[in-house]
Amino acid sequence: MNRTERLLRSCRGEPVDRPPVWLMRQAGRYLPEYRRVREGVSFLDLCRDVERAVEVSLQPLRLLGTEAVILFSDIFVPVLGMGVELDFRPGPVVARPIRTREQVAALAVRDPRESAPYVFEILRVLRRELAEEQVPLLGFAGAPFSLAAYLVQGGGSRHFSAVKRMMHRDPETLRALLDRLTELAVAHLNAQIEAGAQAVQLFDTWAGLLSRADYREWVLPVHRELVAKVDREAAPLILYVNDGAHVVDEMLEAGPDVISLDWRVDLADAARRAGRRASVQGNLDPCLLYAPAEAIGAAVREAVRAAAPARGHILNLGHGCLPDTPVEGVRAFIRAAQQLA
Amino acid sequence: MNRTERLLRSCRGEPVDRPPVWLMRQAGRYLPEYRRVREGVSFLDLCRDVERAVEVSLQPLRLLGTEAVILFSDIFVPVLGMGVELDFRPGPVVARPIRTREQVAALAVRDPRESAPYVFEILRVLRRELAEEQVPLLGFAGAPFSLAAYLVQGGGSRHFSAVKRMMHRDPETLRALLDRLTELAVAHLNAQIEAGAQAVQLFDTWAGLLSRADYREWVLPVHRELVAKVDREAAPLILYVNDGAHVVDEMLEAGPDVISLDWRVDLADAARRAGRRASVQGNLDPCLLYAPAEAIGAAVREAVRAAAPARGHILNLGHGCLPDTPVEGVRAFIRAAQQLA
Repeated sequence: MNRTERLLRSCRGEPVDRPPVWLMRQAGRYLPEYRRVREGVSFLDLCRDVERAVEVSLQPLRLLGTEAVILFSDIFVPVLGMGVELDFRPGPVVARPIRTREQVAALAVRDPRESAPYVFEILRVLRRELAEEQVPLLGFAGAPFSLAAYLVQGGGSRHFSAVKRMMHRDPETLRALLDRLTELAVAHLNAQIEAGAQAVQLFDTWAGLLSRADYREWVLPVHRELVAKVDREAAPLILYVNDGAHVVDEMLEAGPDVISLDWRVDLADAARRAGRRASVQGNLDPCLLYAPAEAIGAAVREAVRAAAPARGHILNLGHGCLPDTPVEGVRAFIRAAQQLA
Repeated sequence: MNRTERLLRSCRGEPVDRPPVWLMRQAGRYLPEYRRVREGVSFLDLCRDVERAVEVSLQPLRLLGTEAVILFSDIFVPVLGMGVELDFRPGPVVARPIRTREQVAALAVRDPRESAPYVFEILRVLRRELAEEQVPLLGFAGAPFSLAAYLVQGGGSRHFSAVKRMMHRDPETLRALLDRLTELAVAHLNAQIEAGAQAVQLFDTWAGLLSRADYREWVLPVHRELVAKVDREAAPLILYVNDGAHVVDEMLEAGPDVISLDWRVDLADAARRAGRRASVQGNLDPCLLYAPAEAIGAAVREAVRAAAPARGHILNLGHGCLPDTPVEGVRAFIRAAQQLA
């Protein structure tokens, strides 16, 4: 079974020999080879530089043997095309936080193929590179609520209270903002699929800050719309919600092909809820990669056992690799997955 | 029914006329009167200044009618007595993060009555002030894991990966650190009870960053030990775990009188699990206090309905008041609680 088949069949709940393995933020600062490419170039310039972005996208495959390649880019790349001014220092900082209906109305939903053509060129080059080896290529987008949380707050935050303030005091403006960001995410994901992405992941990093009731009102309908409008015949959709132990049922209710779970979610319980409705992805604590190889191996085997009730399982972390993740920990994780055969 | 009876009976699951109400971080920057006292004095000096600390402790009672008064202090106050050098800028910053067994061995567990006598003087003054009005007085301590997370990391952090690194690479050092911090917390809480605290709350702000398995191994035994060693005959123990939707059963398993839940926990589900074993406290999103009064009132009534299966309920937020919490939101919250009668 080649790697593309293994991943795509796992997404759809078809039989496979063993779970495929990749890691969120597998192309990142923990890799010395990444840091070398990144040197002397800004983060956004790296996203725009087709040759370098292709190189760093491929590093985890070439150096570590991950079983999927994900586009190197950032969730804010398509947002730049809306006319939002932002900077990375190193987290995203929005020059003028979005607080009014007028600011929302001024956001342009441009075709990402025009506003960020390099993204699709990176995907096309990667797909050609990977075709012969039969390694699957993933695209991704930031989910509307998480993008809105940043845009309204103006940058990273522990509580992201500004977007919640808007939710309670000016819900129509937030609704309008989410509508635009949803339209953008649909266009961005479908254009990535057209350019060669074989599966796509939606990252909702901040939706887990909402109570279950608020999540049902503000996030679930957005996810449902994305699930309906993304071309899932061509590429299955993986839905990741960070810190979402309280909304696993809602993640399933949105109807994605795969729910991607953070390390705090009880995987056995989530896999039982998923059953034949969805596959599960995850969910080791990235910090477990600090541990000795034996402990990592035991956790991989435990995750596979826990995920058994779900129709499919993709081994991954519950969050992205941290900058100080030891490369040997990543190797141990991948090796343990590949020894499951 | 006076306010002391209402709170203490609610903690123990005895019948009351309606749930009592108070707010975590009710004495804080959102109150202009607090900011006035705080002006020109450092945060730690405010904790040490008996007269001012008494004044800010009482402000939420006097100005807003909260139904409990909590000691104004900080979770790091007893830690200072261990010989740890730290500063607030405004979050805690540890001069020398604790990374080695030798550093742990050098931590002194001093009697908090000697290292921080002002804490107990504040409590004694408050108890005298409140005796006639029959308002309950609460003490508190930071839970060992959360203190360790700060001490090992060196300050605040999104992932607190340093303490997890120690967990995986040097578990004995972490165990030794937790042992000392547990001893300290027990001494600190019992001394507060002796000085007049009628109930005590344990704050585990960062334990929710652990997977359920890691929490069971590293946090649950510590909570169990605290539950066993704190004088709960004299003062019921409230256990707060932030971001703990995945460990509600473990919070109950520790055996506190009350589990205090953050806003992401499904209160109805947690109350069913708690049943006759424990009372529940919480759990409105602090950001709900940005909303109009009617929405706050509806959420209060919904929380009370959801909490019904538990033996008792204390109305509170799911996290502390934020600095930009509107005072009118706090008033609406308290008013809604008091109209339940």
